[in-house]
Amino acid sequence: MLPGHGLAMLRTRVCELFAIEHPILNAPMGGGDAPAELAAAVSEAGGLGMIGGTTIGGVDWLVEQIRIARELTDRPFGVGFISHFPQTSLLMEAALAAGVRIVAHSFADPAPFMPAARDAGARVLCQVRTVADAQRAAAAGVDVVTAQGTEAGGHTGHVSTLPLVPRVVDAVAPTPVIAAGGIADGRGIAAALMLGAEGVWLGTRFLTTSESGVSDRYKARVIEATGDDTVLTDVFDIVAGRPWPEGVSGRAIRNRFSQRWVGHEDELRAWAAEHGDEHRALGPDAEVDEQAIWAGEAAGFVTEMTSAGEVVHSLVAQADAVLRERAALVLRG
Amino acid sequence: MLPGHGLAMLRTRVCELFAIEHPILNAPMGGGDAPAELAAAVSEAGGLGMIGGTTIGGVDWLVEQIRIARELTDRPFGVGFISHFPQTSLLMEAALAAGVRIVAHSFADPAPFMPAARDAGARVLCQVRTVADAQRAAAAGVDVVTAQGTEAGGHTGHVSTLPLVPRVVDAVAPTPVIAAGGIADGRGIAAALMLGAEGVWLGTRFLTTSESGVSDRYKARVIEATGDDTVLTDVFDIVAGRPWPEGVSGRAIRNRFSQRWVGHEDELRAWAAEHGDEHRALGPDAEVDEQAIWAGEAAGFVTEMTSAGEVVHSLVAQADAVLRERAALVLRG
Repeated sequence: MLPGHGLAMLRTRVCELFAIEHPILNAPMGGGDAPAELAAAVSEAGGLGMIGGTTIGGVDWLVEQIRIARELTDRPFGVGFISHFPQTSLLMEAALAAGVRIVAHSFADPAPFMPAARDAGARVLCQVRTVADAQRAAAAGVDVVTAQGTEAGGHTGHVSTLPLVPRVVDAVAPTPVIAAGGIADGRGIAAALMLGAEGVWLGTRFLTTSESGVSDRYKARVIEATGDDTVLTDVFDIVAGRPWPEGVSGRAIRNRFSQRWVGHEDELRAWAAEHGDEHRALGPDAEVDEQAIWAGEAAGFVTEMTSAGEVVHSLVAQADAVLRERAALVLRG
Repeated sequence: MLPGHGLAMLRTRVCELFAIEHPILNAPMGGGDAPAELAAAVSEAGGLGMIGGTTIGGVDWLVEQIRIARELTDRPFGVGFISHFPQTSLLMEAALAAGVRIVAHSFADPAPFMPAARDAGARVLCQVRTVADAQRAAAAGVDVVTAQGTEAGGHTGHVSTLPLVPRVVDAVAPTPVIAAGGIADGRGIAAALMLGAEGVWLGTRFLTTSESGVSDRYKARVIEATGDDTVLTDVFDIVAGRPWPEGVSGRAIRNRFSQRWVGHEDELRAWAAEHGDEHRALGPDAEVDEQAIWAGEAAGFVTEMTSAGEVVHSLVAQADAVLRERAALVLRG
């Protein structure tokens, strides 16, 4: 064992940058999956809570979420966007006007969003899936780059976290990099730090917390799933009629819908033209079989529903222990 | 910095088990890509060199390779097999008869191979791509399980190394686990150790060494490629007429052939029935455009051709430095 102390702690450059204790962020999952309650709970536990700002509720929903989060915590939190969707500028400007000083962009060139963020004195993160996109984000002057591996749930790219993160670190240095995708316990966090990441961004791990916005059926399905049960596919986007940038697909838990359509995308396009509206109108009973249960390969680590605060505390304690024990073990020679 | 010493060293349980200095193995790549010269160079540098025992040369080729390796090194080395291919038992028995005491199986249940290996007093590794296969291997009594992520070059599964390794570690404990897929520098090794792996198994990183069996054109193409340039596909197996187990595909660098056929596998099956022999007879000029240039996402880290010994030494030095510096940095609080 390395010399220890009583209090588990991970300190990196992003702790200072965001004025937080632990370099752990919840992913700002869209569609209401990462609401004010989740962001506030993560921030209260010493991480950086993120509200997913892209929902059908638009600006009004987001402003209300920011108000709720501020009632729940005095600590910093941020808002993240699916930035190739329309209205991202409007949403970001509303968040900045409401006093938010940390914003995250994803799935788009962050350059057009930088002037307004800078004018407000906000910190900007940008999530990327390739080295080329990381370089574009660094050139735009973002404060932090999030490198997202293909393991991630929801929309992601095709390169895995382990080989992606060090290459992004090298490509954007000295800009700090945060790792996303496939991380859900202290071992994953310790590994990400070894790859050169200064923090971690977790979606699936926070989806099953009591504060996340997904339904209890959804949470139960993620808890049941193993890491082998996910599929990276366009079928849910095809039936939703929502286009995503080249090289991006969605990772979801295999279900009746994906079993039927993966590998038959052309046929699905024809089917969706006729039955898309009907499919989109299916009620909550059909959710887990017919709709996208977005989740990453980290689903294999999620075995119970806990609070987001407990998740942050246990991740920090585990990562601290792993770093001390494993580093000492392998270097004892 | 943690207290250091002059000599870089990584010590784990597999070092004792295999009587080696560093827990670094070259993948026993088939088809002659991992010949005696590569295995001997890795072993001489303190790692565990592995001959890829599955080639069209059969038993005669393998016995000759073992003889050559023994001339080049007094240190232990092993032989690995693509174990769902015919003749694996014959090949393994020939290796054991020639005095090899470390064998690795992959792509098959190792149970049928255990009695002969045990009778010879050999150590057995088994490479897996899912938790279920890891449990099967542990139940068969193997000494070490290699957990191979989808990042790996050549034939591999669909789950990434970062989420796969810890779940395999938990599933087979106390059997030691070695990580494979996406690892090609000291950061990747340090990360794998944090995930609970006791060692690493590298294919792509050793493909471009002077001792590997692939052509100079092949090496040049891997060195040129980035980690974004690979594709996991069945097209090369379809045209080769070689079936692989369910859930296994091949990762190769995108080339003219993959660009043409990925996504058109049914059409390719029809085309191969007519043109397969012709395609398989293409000469070395067509190699990089028309044949499988197997390589993993770690290709992004490979930027020059060096000797396998230099690779082992630099990996150990880098991993040692990363473990000391990163662990101290994040725990300094």
